[in-house]
Amino acid sequence: MCQLLGMNCNTPTDIVFSFEAFRRRGGITDVHADGFGIGFFEGKGIRLLHDDQPCAHSPIADLVRQYQIKSTNVIAHIRKATQGQISLANTHPFVRELWGEYWLFAHNGHLSDIQAAADDVYHAVGSTDSERAFCYMLNQLRRRFSKKPNKNQLFDAISELATELRERGLFNFMLSNGECLLTHAGSLLFYIIRKAPFGEAHLLDDDLSVDFAAVTTPKDKVAVIATLPLTANEVWQQLAVNELVMFADGDIVCRNTPVMPRYLSKEEGLAIARAYGSAAE
Amino acid sequence: MCQLLGMNCNTPTDIVFSFEAFRRRGGITDVHADGFGIGFFEGKGIRLLHDDQPCAHSPIADLVRQYQIKSTNVIAHIRKATQGQISLANTHPFVRELWGEYWLFAHNGHLSDIQAAADDVYHAVGSTDSERAFCYMLNQLRRRFSKKPNKNQLFDAISELATELRERGLFNFMLSNGECLLTHAGSLLFYIIRKAPFGEAHLLDDDLSVDFAAVTTPKDKVAVIATLPLTANEVWQQLAVNELVMFADGDIVCRNTPVMPRYLSKEEGLAIARAYGSAAE
Repeated sequence: MCQLLGMNCNTPTDIVFSFEAFRRRGGITDVHADGFGIGFFEGKGIRLLHDDQPCAHSPIADLVRQYQIKSTNVIAHIRKATQGQISLANTHPFVRELWGEYWLFAHNGHLSDIQAAADDVYHAVGSTDSERAFCYMLNQLRRRFSKKPNKNQLFDAISELATELRERGLFNFMLSNGECLLTHAGSLLFYIIRKAPFGEAHLLDDDLSVDFAAVTTPKDKVAVIATLPLTANEVWQQLAVNELVMFADGDIVCRNTPVMPRYLSKEEGLAIARAYGSAAE
Repeated sequence: MCQLLGMNCNTPTDIVFSFEAFRRRGGITDVHADGFGIGFFEGKGIRLLHDDQPCAHSPIADLVRQYQIKSTNVIAHIRKATQGQISLANTHPFVRELWGEYWLFAHNGHLSDIQAAADDVYHAVGSTDSERAFCYMLNQLRRRFSKKPNKNQLFDAISELATELRERGLFNFMLSNGECLLTHAGSLLFYIIRKAPFGEAHLLDDDLSVDFAAVTTPKDKVAVIATLPLTANEVWQQLAVNELVMFADGDIVCRNTPVMPRYLSKEEGLAIARAYGSAAE
């Protein structure tokens, strides 16, 4: 199974602390050693860093730490390839432009039978089901809205698309246009919203702590979302299976928690991932 | 004036030698110290590296040397900002997807009055005339061809678009879909095609030589295109003003040299750039 990491904040924030834990799962504390990708919104622009080397040992991942890129929206993905060529064209996150904004997408899972239509605007460049799903969603959004809708309309449309697509497999995804970050759980996703009073956090995967009070202002709000919790001494909230959550300015602005929410244990989530493993990206 | 650098080859080749000269113009041997961008095709995928630090001193530019990324198509741009915000969304090269391929574009010059149409597929994210020109070209190509045309049809269409757009200002550009690289001279552009028997080349901007015979095979063909020649002991060919050239597999496959070709001296080219300087990106 691959792993996802996302961040949404009300002020540009560096993701170094979370990314340091996450990247160790790319070859040190876990087996996701087949490359990684991370996309940062910087204003309306996107900085994308990819590598086919294990994230834990990648000089490009070192650059993330060195540059301490500050962003309000970040999506990262580390990969355990079980099939499919490892190539740059198949590396998450993927980017397209819609309504004069860049959109960033990463997926953990597997979806089958996503067909392209003759009049589609967006086409996959690589060979992953993930990029096809992303293009499918953007094609549908463009058909529904010739101009950018408001947040509630956008959330409802993406919720319908997620409901449709998850019928075809396992669909954990993160999607952002630089304003909001949408996260959908097909199996495992956890989040935490850090805000004042800030405390100290200790990474699960590394002997590293940070005192957020020392590096934040009282107004800061930072939501971090990940396949599995990254810190040991904080309470992470779990997304229910099939739940879609929209974050903006470091807080939840829309969510569609199922009437009968179901939460998977880590073991159950990993077992599902393994069941899809023979076909997972 | 900004500067452009492009490479098109028949076998994946690293651009380190040319880029080392080019980047020194970004803050050491010349004044283009307001950031840079470089895009590499790796298979069908694109790796984009940008920095708003002067290219000559950028850790991200160091990464280009460290990684020795091999590519068949590369476009790089160093920037001397004369107006306009320096932001990631305004940094060349720009990328969009068309017909299931990524397209990479960089521009040196200035174009006015590029209007968007209501039914456009591609919209600029940033505020540059360059990105608007790129989107205009892609919108027009999509209207003309629902599927990817052959190289001659593509060349003719881009030639028409270049003729139309250059009426609006100064239009030196490079455009690539990972198969071919199109270069259009509004003022200054030079190229060289290196092939067997390979010799030694010595950089103009640096005390650096390379013996290409030692790092190539007899079948290799490498076309390098730049605003101004990069080496001292090789003969660079100049593009005529308004000439469009398509390179593929390291060689020229199409060109439309004007009937009365006009070649600018470096001084004339720089004077034109200065005349547009108050509005140039």
